[in-house]
Amino acid sequence: MRILVLGGDGYLGWPTALHLSQRGHEVGVADSLVRRHYDDEMGVSSLVPIRQLQRRVSTWKEVSGHTIQPFIGDLTNYAFVTETLRSFEPEAVVHFAEQRSAPYSMIDRDHAVYTQVNNVVGTLNMLYAIAELDPSIHLVKLGTMGEYGSPNIEIEEGFIEITHKGRTDLLPFPKQPNSFYHLSKVHDSHNIMFACRTWGLRSTDLNQGIVYGQQTPETVLHPDLATRVDYDAVFGTVLNRFAVQAAVGYPLTVYGKGGQTRAMLEIRDTLACVELACLNPAEAGEFRVFNQFTESFSVRQLAEWVQRVAPMDVKIESIPDPRVEKEEHYYQAVTTRLPELGLKPHLLGDDFVRSLVELAVRHKDRVNVEAIRPTVNWRVTRSEVSVAGGSVGE
Amino acid sequence: MRILVLGGDGYLGWPTALHLSQRGHEVGVADSLVRRHYDDEMGVSSLVPIRQLQRRVSTWKEVSGHTIQPFIGDLTNYAFVTETLRSFEPEAVVHFAEQRSAPYSMIDRDHAVYTQVNNVVGTLNMLYAIAELDPSIHLVKLGTMGEYGSPNIEIEEGFIEITHKGRTDLLPFPKQPNSFYHLSKVHDSHNIMFACRTWGLRSTDLNQGIVYGQQTPETVLHPDLATRVDYDAVFGTVLNRFAVQAAVGYPLTVYGKGGQTRAMLEIRDTLACVELACLNPAEAGEFRVFNQFTESFSVRQLAEWVQRVAPMDVKIESIPDPRVEKEEHYYQAVTTRLPELGLKPHLLGDDFVRSLVELAVRHKDRVNVEAIRPTVNWRVTRSEVSVAGGSVGE
Repeated sequence: MRILVLGGDGYLGWPTALHLSQRGHEVGVADSLVRRHYDDEMGVSSLVPIRQLQRRVSTWKEVSGHTIQPFIGDLTNYAFVTETLRSFEPEAVVHFAEQRSAPYSMIDRDHAVYTQVNNVVGTLNMLYAIAELDPSIHLVKLGTMGEYGSPNIEIEEGFIEITHKGRTDLLPFPKQPNSFYHLSKVHDSHNIMFACRTWGLRSTDLNQGIVYGQQTPETVLHPDLATRVDYDAVFGTVLNRFAVQAAVGYPLTVYGKGGQTRAMLEIRDTLACVELACLNPAEAGEFRVFNQFTESFSVRQLAEWVQRVAPMDVKIESIPDPRVEKEEHYYQAVTTRLPELGLKPHLLGDDFVRSLVELAVRHKDRVNVEAIRPTVNWRVTRSEVSVAGGSVGE
Repeated sequence: MRILVLGGDGYLGWPTALHLSQRGHEVGVADSLVRRHYDDEMGVSSLVPIRQLQRRVSTWKEVSGHTIQPFIGDLTNYAFVTETLRSFEPEAVVHFAEQRSAPYSMIDRDHAVYTQVNNVVGTLNMLYAIAELDPSIHLVKLGTMGEYGSPNIEIEEGFIEITHKGRTDLLPFPKQPNSFYHLSKVHDSHNIMFACRTWGLRSTDLNQGIVYGQQTPETVLHPDLATRVDYDAVFGTVLNRFAVQAAVGYPLTVYGKGGQTRAMLEIRDTLACVELACLNPAEAGEFRVFNQFTESFSVRQLAEWVQRVAPMDVKIESIPDPRVEKEEHYYQAVTTRLPELGLKPHLLGDDFVRSLVELAVRHKDRVNVEAIRPTVNWRVTRSEVSVAGGSVGE
């Protein structure tokens, strides 16, 4: 199958491209490489060293014999989008290519506007290009479980049957996102749903949980093939962050009570889910939503897990929650569509948590400890353009 | 009360500013004047001649003795937003300042992207500026009943109590908008809801129906005070359009079966609703939604009404629906919040319909008949930048 991975230079985009290539698909990756620029802006680097995209692709060719075709450009540039689709002629487009950090979107007005414009316009361009050039292309879009927020009812997969005053309808599940980043994904979901209904496009919205882990069967074949790991307070995500904090002797930073419960999954399951979605495409005109996660954990539970299995002495510190969110809440979400298609989850275990800590220990000299503590506070609105860059990490 | 009307040069913004000024409020209007540019782009003009904003304001001063302070600039320019707020120091901001045509947003990719970026960024800027400068400012935002689409259950005012698998929550009413314009309003609603929850802002989202009429007690005081009337297929709305079509002897263009049912209200009720929302502000942190309409009609019903009361012979023509929408559907929506605050609706009657036709007859020499038939088709995706302007109205 011909699959184009947008954002194919990123944390998940790159290993997804490798996985699909290894499985025999014809793979292209498109990326603006802006994720590397965010590192420079934040003054941090991936825990594990990563190679440039061109080197990654050439090493993959040497190691596996498979070709991955790179396209360097930005989805907000419509000419780039159409030229890439015309050149590669994909059957499926896997869309990871968005600014994906909630704290980054909350730095100030500039970053909020950038995140929403970048994500919404990139996706609008892709929808128009698919409609124009080949409406049969299946758009596999990465959304997030964070679109739903934490309602007091069970979260369904995208749609919910509501009976109200004696009438019944199947309607989009109400969304309560908690950052301008999460909001941008909600905007995307509405735009894509409309394009499917109006133009007959086919799309799968993968509402993904928080991903942990770094190694996949392909990335471990050669150091050049490694994918990035973020541990900083802006781009790092919960379990990966805790492993690094343990490795450098930093107390695990639990926000408030730590009762925030989140849907999660291991990196290898992300790759499997994406391939399953591609191999079982949505119908023409269909907008479907898969909740892409395998387990749910509270933040405190994860901190205690790392503390329990890490080989070193680990402290847990509760710090004031920089986000405006419920620190304890009901959380239950359905995920049946991907298991029905054949997903066999890798559930979290002691060995995996320990291996994450060991990975962090191997690279701990690369950690900038200054970047661990959160500096972006949801309650503080910084709007001035002049302070945008310099304000972070100070 | 000090009230700043964003989009105060437009069809509803201008008469709203006059109404509030006449009622003794201190009124400022902010406008980029881009609505006049859309006229040039489309090759049409308001049915009724309108004056430039500066002249409108000076005539109003002569006629009423009241001052309306104009601010010319664009909400996507953050410096303009903050300078205007700092200068005027409003207690309430009434936000009409968005690209408000569904067909305009569907012309091509350029217009879709423009509509979403313009509307979303303008509103984001206003949220940041209010949070920065004075979080007590009440944002009265014009949304649309079109955000809801036409679900098979009764439409509530913004939120719906859902009982699901034995648990209950009050959640945002699911949205199913039918154009990139309507989608932009849904994006705004989600962004504003988040800003209220996170920053403690106060906002009222007025989900307005389709407005008809042109005259208000203030606009009729002098020809310089007239507000615009649009009759073309891109910016014209249903009842106003039909009145003009009757006046020029053009068959009333009903899309498909004409069973599309829409919530509607008279222009004077819009002004009353906006003032009621300002005088009864939302609480700090509250995001509330009022469904702002008085009656619902199907498109065919309105066409037949015009046919029945117009003094001339009127034909009705069913043309293929250029939109992708249900041509017949269930439609029932709640509106209790505004009547509770004191709204006394002006319901539609024969005399009013006849007066609309008479207004159109008086100005029928100004009508460009070529602009009446729809040229924007929801099913056609035109993405190329080069055809954007020239393709409309050809």
